Amino acid sequence: MTTLFKRLQNSCRKEWHAYTQHEFVRALDRGTLSESSFQHYLMQDYLFLIQLARAYAICVYKSDELSEMRQASHLVTNILDKEMNLHLRFCDDWGISSEVLEETQEATATVAYTRFFLEIGMSGDLLDLHVALAPCVIGYGVIGDKLINKPTTDLSLNPFRHWIEEYGGLNYQKLAATACSQLDSLSAKRGGKERLPALVEIFRQATKLEAQFWQMGLDQSY
Amino acid sequence: MTTLFKRLQNSCRKEWHAYTQHEFVRALDRGTLSESSFQHYLMQDYLFLIQLARAYAICVYKSDELSEMRQASHLVTNILDKEMNLHLRFCDDWGISSEVLEETQEATATVAYTRFFLEIGMSGDLLDLHVALAPCVIGYGVIGDKLINKPTTDLSLNPFRHWIEEYGGLNYQKLAATACSQLDSLSAKRGGKERLPALVEIFRQATKLEAQFWQMGLDQSY
Amino acid sequence: MTTLFKRLQNSCRKEWHAYTQHEFVRALDRGTLSESSFQHYLMQDYLFLIQLARAYAICVYKSDELSEMRQASHLVTNILDKEMNLHLRFCDDWGISSEVLEETQEATATVAYTRFFLEIGMSGDLLDLHVALAPCVIGYGVIGDKLINKPTTDLSLNPFRHWIEEYGGLNYQKLAATACSQLDSLSAKRGGKERLPALVEIFRQATKLEAQFWQMGLDQSY
Amino acid sequence: MTTLFKRLQNSCRKEWHAYTQHEFVRALDRGTLSESSFQHYLMQDYLFLIQLARAYAICVYKSDELSEMRQASHLVTNILDKEMNLHLRFCDDWGISSEVLEETQEATATVAYTRFFLEIGMSGDLLDLHVALAPCVIGYGVIGDKLINKPTTDLSLNPFRHWIEEYGGLNYQKLAATACSQLDSLSAKRGGKERLPALVEIFRQATKLEAQFWQMGLDQSY
Repeated sequence: MTTLFKRLQNSCRKEWHAYTQHEFVRALDRGTLSESSFQHYLMQDYLFLIQLARAYAICVYKSDELSEMRQASHLVTNILDKEMNLHLRFCDDWGISSEVLEETQEATATVAYTRFFLEIGMSGDLLDLHVALAPCVIGYGVIGDKLINKPTTDLSLNPFRHWIEEYGGLNYQKLAATACSQLDSLSAKRGGKERLPALVEIFRQATKLEAQFWQMGLDQSY
Repeated sequence: MTTLFKRLQNSCRKEWHAYTQHEFVRALDRGTLSESSFQHYLMQDYLFLIQLARAYAICVYKSDELSEMRQASHLVTNILDKEMNLHLRFCDDWGISSEVLEETQEATATVAYTRFFLEIGMSGDLLDLHVALAPCVIGYGVIGDKLINKPTTDLSLNPFRHWIEEYGGLNYQKLAATACSQLDSLSAKRGGKERLPALVEIFRQATKLEAQFWQMGLDQSY
Repeated sequence: MTTLFKRLQNSCRKEWHAYTQHEFVRALDRGTLSESSFQHYLMQDYLFLIQLARAYAICVYKSDELSEMRQASHLVTNILDKEMNLHLRFCDDWGISSEVLEETQEATATVAYTRFFLEIGMSGDLLDLHVALAPCVIGYGVIGDKLINKPTTDLSLNPFRHWIEEYGGLNYQKLAATACSQLDSLSAKRGGKERLPALVEIFRQATKLEAQFWQMGLDQSY
Repeated sequence: MTTLFKRLQNSCRKEWHAYTQHEFVRALDRGTLSESSFQHYLMQDYLFLIQLARAYAICVYKSDELSEMRQASHLVTNILDKEMNLHLRFCDDWGISSEVLEETQEATATVAYTRFFLEIGMSGDLLDLHVALAPCVIGYGVIGDKLINKPTTDLSLNPFRHWIEEYGGLNYQKLAATACSQLDSLSAKRGGKERLPALVEIFRQATKLEAQFWQMGLDQSY
């Protein structure tokens, strides 16, 4: 059985490649990304997390089973109570104070992807929203897994080792796998084959916007 | 081919019967409904229309094709620019002034059904919303058609003749038929079989709330 | 300084009295409420809690400060992870099994109030939503406080003692006080005086729907 | 009396200047904008219009007075039934067929601004939404008015004459003036002074995203 995620990925090969093999990712892998690009990315990623928490809050609201509501509410509190603090500490390690973070303006690429998925969350249903989030939630797992398992990767010398270990690590891989199987269970309840063409377009747009997010990091643009 | 509407109706026979054969409807048919019950119903129906216009506005927002957006926007303007004025005139014929109408409080049964479908419109997708509206939009057509075509119905003597002719008439029958085929085209795009159990529950609840709307008219309750 | 809650209450004295002094409340107080009415109420209150969790999820989404998002997300998890289990146990004490609970249909009065506040949550802003919730969240505190402090109340003999102690108790009183001061802080940010007339109408409708909720318990109606 | 729009504009002078005096605008004025940049802009503007119609549909839903609902619904039908056809014809004049238009992908800058205001429309109230739209709706009026009244502007030789006459013309100026006074009447109902800091931030972000929209036209970027 092909998962829905696999089908979506296969329908957007070009965009998926441009996202997962983006110069930003390759530079992370080689350890050659400029420090200021990584810092710019980190600051925007912090602002991104806030919007992701809002997206999971929409998931709580849109779930029609208690178990789904609970799962989504744990994702919300996990971001707000844990991830954001970890992110603050990680930023601090890279010389970004919490004061600087709080004054950071959202870049256009950050606005574009986050408001895109939030708006899909409002105008569509739970499946539409999870598909819009997949390039981020599952995609980071795919990228992390690839980077950590590359035979050429010598993490001990890589300044971005922490990032790679985070997304290539077991915890995140589990989270991504759960998100992947949730796409299938949602599709089993809310329509599969008929919806594929529309879901592919959502996935394509989200994947392109994620690639733009890397580009924004690279360009240090707003 | 069985339409989605037919499937929904067949899955909720008991509730559908309680709604379409409600004492209020039978009294309309026989011409024995009390004038004050009909007036109470008319006033609440006016408030209902406002919420229906809001529901179609959600449809405009949630449509992903221009033709759908246009169709829904015409339903909005049709209610706001035509239907509501016809309703005002009809109320006037029954001795209800526009001043009285504007001061009328929404009855609990009116709040229950209208906020139910509006909330479904927000938490679900376009198909969920149209299913929640179907007992009203298509149901009134079914009831009107039945009443106008009954051999025993002598409309010339029925004080509610105008109402029966409105919903049994060609214009409304066309609108109901369009709504019916729209359910099928939406289902073809956004999932059919897999969604049926959840759609049935939405339809069941909406049908029960419509029956409560008749009961509220009968009881003249708030 | 008069709190916003006080202003709302004073603008809806009649409805507030009808709600807080409802026959259901007086029968709770005297211990004379029929067991089956209380059971009916408990079952509907369980279904109500699910919708309240969804309302707080909307609050997470609609908050524009991290501290507000966190506060609302804790209310969501508190309901889903604690309150609902306590409610299940409480229902069990009253002879209602979790199987019965899960098959319980929402009564019209439950649909009316819950979908009313959820819809306000979508069409309005955070302040509108909190005002729509106030008759429930703060009102239960007002009622619990009154019942527990009545000199004539002999709780030791009252079969509904647990309920009265729950809402009259310190924990709930704190939660209600927090909700009350949150109304004021929201109003300070999102408009006060100008919005009062519209907020009063939301509060009035919500209060009436809460009275209908008691009535539904009393009548054991659906 | 200073209008709300004026206050917002004065609070974001730098961003307002960067938007209204953007190189794209100056090149329109001078008639020196490259044809392909203008074509790129026109195609994205067509996609923008669809999202603007959705925003006005949210306005219909969020209005709490019939007159407001009607006004917003006329803006929806005006875009869907008139503006879009005019735009198609205008695009055709510039050599862009409707087939090309329909296959055009949304640029990141288009996604960013449109989803930003739609999401504000969902998470905030009617006033938040109208403030997020103001840089577009009122801003185009300001820009059009400036261009058409410049003593140095010789429209007869300007290839973008049609665009300048459209937004500098009486019809659009009236529409912008109505939008401007609507901001004030909404503020009178839904809060003014207290909300200003938050409204300024919405206006600032929207203005920056509009400037990015010009930049996207200039760069012919996606």
